[in-house]
Amino acid sequence: MTEETKRLLESIDTPNDLKRLDVSQLEQVCSELREFIIDQVSTNPGHFGAGLGVVELTVALHYVFNTPYDKLIWDVGHQAYPHKILTGRRKQFHTNRKYKGLSGFPKMDESEYDAFGVGHSSTSISAALGMAIAAKMNKESRHVVAIIGDGSMTAGLAFEGLNNAGIDKSDLLVILNDNNMAIDANVGALKEYLLDITTSKSYNKMRKDVWNILGNLERLGPVARRYVKKIESGVKTALLQQSNLFQSLNFRYFGPIDGHDVERLTQVLNDLKDIPGPKLLHVLTKKGKGYKPAEEDQTIWHAPGVFDKETGLRETTPVDQIVPPRYQDVFGETIVELAEKNPKILGITPAMPSGCSLNIMMEKMPSRAFDVGIAEQHAVTFSAGLAAAGYIPYCNIYSSFMQRAYDNVIHDVALQNLDVVFCLDRGGIVGEDGPTHHGMFDIGFFRIIPNMVVAAPMNEVELRNMMYTAQLGGKGPFSIRYPRGRGVTHDWKQPFTEIEVGKGRTISEGNDVAFVTLGHPGNYAQTAVTRLAKQGIAVGLYDMRFAKPLDEELLHSILKRYRHIITVEDGALQGGFGSAVLEFMADNGYTNSITRLGAPDRFIEHGTVQQLHKDCGIDPESLFQTALKAAMELPTAAETIRK
Amino acid sequence: MTEETKRLLESIDTPNDLKRLDVSQLEQVCSELREFIIDQVSTNPGHFGAGLGVVELTVALHYVFNTPYDKLIWDVGHQAYPHKILTGRRKQFHTNRKYKGLSGFPKMDESEYDAFGVGHSSTSISAALGMAIAAKMNKESRHVVAIIGDGSMTAGLAFEGLNNAGIDKSDLLVILNDNNMAIDANVGALKEYLLDITTSKSYNKMRKDVWNILGNLERLGPVARRYVKKIESGVKTALLQQSNLFQSLNFRYFGPIDGHDVERLTQVLNDLKDIPGPKLLHVLTKKGKGYKPAEEDQTIWHAPGVFDKETGLRETTPVDQIVPPRYQDVFGETIVELAEKNPKILGITPAMPSGCSLNIMMEKMPSRAFDVGIAEQHAVTFSAGLAAAGYIPYCNIYSSFMQRAYDNVIHDVALQNLDVVFCLDRGGIVGEDGPTHHGMFDIGFFRIIPNMVVAAPMNEVELRNMMYTAQLGGKGPFSIRYPRGRGVTHDWKQPFTEIEVGKGRTISEGNDVAFVTLGHPGNYAQTAVTRLAKQGIAVGLYDMRFAKPLDEELLHSILKRYRHIITVEDGALQGGFGSAVLEFMADNGYTNSITRLGAPDRFIEHGTVQQLHKDCGIDPESLFQTALKAAMELPTAAETIRK
Repeated sequence: MTEETKRLLESIDTPNDLKRLDVSQLEQVCSELREFIIDQVSTNPGHFGAGLGVVELTVALHYVFNTPYDKLIWDVGHQAYPHKILTGRRKQFHTNRKYKGLSGFPKMDESEYDAFGVGHSSTSISAALGMAIAAKMNKESRHVVAIIGDGSMTAGLAFEGLNNAGIDKSDLLVILNDNNMAIDANVGALKEYLLDITTSKSYNKMRKDVWNILGNLERLGPVARRYVKKIESGVKTALLQQSNLFQSLNFRYFGPIDGHDVERLTQVLNDLKDIPGPKLLHVLTKKGKGYKPAEEDQTIWHAPGVFDKETGLRETTPVDQIVPPRYQDVFGETIVELAEKNPKILGITPAMPSGCSLNIMMEKMPSRAFDVGIAEQHAVTFSAGLAAAGYIPYCNIYSSFMQRAYDNVIHDVALQNLDVVFCLDRGGIVGEDGPTHHGMFDIGFFRIIPNMVVAAPMNEVELRNMMYTAQLGGKGPFSIRYPRGRGVTHDWKQPFTEIEVGKGRTISEGNDVAFVTLGHPGNYAQTAVTRLAKQGIAVGLYDMRFAKPLDEELLHSILKRYRHIITVEDGALQGGFGSAVLEFMADNGYTNSITRLGAPDRFIEHGTVQQLHKDCGIDPESLFQTALKAAMELPTAAETIRK
Repeated sequence: MTEETKRLLESIDTPNDLKRLDVSQLEQVCSELREFIIDQVSTNPGHFGAGLGVVELTVALHYVFNTPYDKLIWDVGHQAYPHKILTGRRKQFHTNRKYKGLSGFPKMDESEYDAFGVGHSSTSISAALGMAIAAKMNKESRHVVAIIGDGSMTAGLAFEGLNNAGIDKSDLLVILNDNNMAIDANVGALKEYLLDITTSKSYNKMRKDVWNILGNLERLGPVARRYVKKIESGVKTALLQQSNLFQSLNFRYFGPIDGHDVERLTQVLNDLKDIPGPKLLHVLTKKGKGYKPAEEDQTIWHAPGVFDKETGLRETTPVDQIVPPRYQDVFGETIVELAEKNPKILGITPAMPSGCSLNIMMEKMPSRAFDVGIAEQHAVTFSAGLAAAGYIPYCNIYSSFMQRAYDNVIHDVALQNLDVVFCLDRGGIVGEDGPTHHGMFDIGFFRIIPNMVVAAPMNEVELRNMMYTAQLGGKGPFSIRYPRGRGVTHDWKQPFTEIEVGKGRTISEGNDVAFVTLGHPGNYAQTAVTRLAKQGIAVGLYDMRFAKPLDEELLHSILKRYRHIITVEDGALQGGFGSAVLEFMADNGYTNSITRLGAPDRFIEHGTVQQLHKDCGIDPESLFQTALKAAMELPTAAETIRK
């Protein structure tokens, strides 16, 4: 094996191993790293395009900076696979996103190289500023680098971070990883602006001039540092002439530069290291870089599932005739059906058109469906504005991202009792994305809001009918939460039927014990009930449909009939649906015994949905066991009388 | 009375009356309006400086635009008094902020002129965009105007709105009301940028040139409109040469102009009316304009309380020897005391230094106390970054504003179990500011977060000790909620004592009935208990201190001893502290009867704290009655046995 062909990646267990290489060898490392990721993610699915896009940037960062002493804060974290692989986790990488395996996102307690845990977007600048100020207070010469995509930059949190960092003199480097994409194509004025910078000829000329100076100086050797500092003010002046959005916020702006030229990146990062204060490096990258199918359809290859790395063929899911549809597609198709009949209906998504399937409406009715960018707060208040003007916006936001728009829901929608329909996708356990993405808290945090309807369908037909009901008007804020993935009904495209708000349904009646369920875990309960029936134990099953308002009539009848009830929800137990039932019981003097099933009071890690539901005790087997135990332990009527 | 001296304000019942006046009369209207506000607010306290600052702007807007068909969206709403007075509410204005009187903020159901309800900052652009797009879809030639301060512009939500509006061609006018202030002085890079624009000579020259052209054309009469449109592209080019932050986001930028020249404002607004697409007018105003003391100390005169309008002397509250301190000042002084001993302690506020009293620390330890601007999300994630670097930030955010940082609390702090202390000021009913500002939901939305400590002191000494305990380290996220205003303890500066996390205290023991309280309403319960004791009824009183973790040992003993318990909290009943007690009871098989007292499931309007506490049934009298009734209705022991 010659020096040139010796593989390098296997020798890199920590960034120190990387630093021992010559800068000319980095391109090979990048190539091997890319190959490794393609190998791994093709068989063990995960986020793909984002990582491929930052291979060179990641190698350059670890080559130049002294990690983990210096801090790299990856925004969102979809793109952190190369980082994980270079920081001691190459050999475990096959456990990525698996139960008790590596997390798909940076995580502080997984590695000292993961300076800050992420999953949601746009936190990196704020967190990095905190660390930079801490370093300054500690008189440490620690570098702090936030790496943030142009999609994440559209969220207000990022702007708040820039606005605050711009008046601080701490050493903070923000790297804008500009690939024109969120998961879907990025949208908004900022995106157009960045494109404008990138393609502006006069700007590019100036940039080239400036960087030629820096570049030439660098080639002179270490003495260049002093010169760099000297010309820094000159550079700033030149750049200020082309006044720039980031300059407006007191950041020194550098770039745009090619994010796939690893040697150039190391050079530039080295130059920037000694420039004090807040600075932003604009790096142009391509999502999916180096894997042609991923470059060509960046949305699909954000997280493509299993694929054949040679042919680029993705493992197709079985055709829809034989498996039930995804709730997402039921939403996507249903909103179009409803909107065709009701001209007041609009669709809103904050940067998740393909994830939530609003893309179906965006294609068919482009003037009535809005992707507002990664901007959950704006999505909700914008919806409130539309509703105040008489429209009925269906604002689709993942449960865990809705946490970011909580005030907007309370202050802009619920307080004014506006007809906004909140479609809370990814309600409950989402699986491999883990604790940042599970939608565990929405039942609790939504049901405490006055005027809010909190609905959760047990199946696709129910989802459609809830969506239908919500647009009948005058309902005020109406939330519908449903899980990630497939439902249970093949023949789901039924004619619409109104569901009375606050009315549950009786699925089966029993003797002493009843399940009182909210949303899709009702199906697990149904499985348990069927199995119990085979053993001669009749257990009731009630799909409450609404956590708010509760079906009080139905609850009275349940509490009068059954001695023990078991509430089931796919969400946090604290303050959740089961607690709503407790409140009803306490207010009405019921003292039935009750078991509340749902997620315990801890963050739920990643794994398959099945495994995690089992951990929470809401899988069919656990429900069966819980009901069986309850039925067995209840005193017989004779025993009760003797008591 | 001559024509010149005839009063005009009294003749203006709607903006139509205003429109009948000649533009030359508007200055007089402004003067009378200002006088009216000074008269009213000096005796019936409310927000003062913000309204005075936009008198001319408000008059010009209603003069030029066709309200209520055209929509004015006032951001925050502190500044909306002139608007209210001109839109049919002059005669009721003496009821401003009073129980069942006018709201201190715009409110949709109060007037058709209030296009969108507000109270929290930075919602106006998003809501206005929704209305502008609705108008476009309806093919209405409706103008929509958002009026937003430079302070509100620092919040991410405003940026999200700009970013989205910048790609829309709807007719949206954003008026940046730039007075360099939030409630306290505005901070951040954006503020410095705006100052830079305002003082830039070359920029001002260009601006003058451009506006001279527009101005002269206008004077030519209606024909000018056509010319204005023609030169629009020329104007745009000229402005683009001075590339500008707002231009970067596809807004046409105009200004800055003098916000106190009402004739000029009408002229400019008229010019802008016919320019399509998103545009921003930068208006320079002075908070408190026209009332000298308010111009000179803008923070104090944001909401000065009662004052003598002639002398400018504010009605002083009684000196501290005779009334207990405000919780805010206890916080402010205590954090300094703690920080003097523990170098890891930092203080963070999002633009509320005087409101929460962190200004005490900012003055004494400027390098360790941070006002990050109106940016609650950033405040929390920035705190998380500081905590990740080993510091203990005390992040002080009003309860209702914490709704805006909910995801940051969950995702950035609690999930990573970081030692951030959340000081939740304004927990519970706040009084005259009303539903946008009451802190009703935090107990519910915080206690469902894993790892979170949810504490609420019953008095100042408890607040100090909780603050002391929180910094002992390794506690994870630790929230302390306390109310607006004065406490109950004169001699509050006691030596610090650690409070064991999750330990409540027994205040009095009783027979059958016990109060189980959280936070300051414990004092009301104490009053009730004392009164009941005088009637020979011994009622227990337990200050639980923590909604999470609950003191399970104490609860076991309470539930074993008392037949009826009454939980009391100053917050929403749904999912609140009482529900936490219910969960404990259900999980442990207790069937004691229970009354949960707190806010019902509706938004609580404005009024005095006393009145609203009474409405919620948690004032001393209601507590007395509730406990008395419970004690009377409980079966005697003999009756129980007979049953």
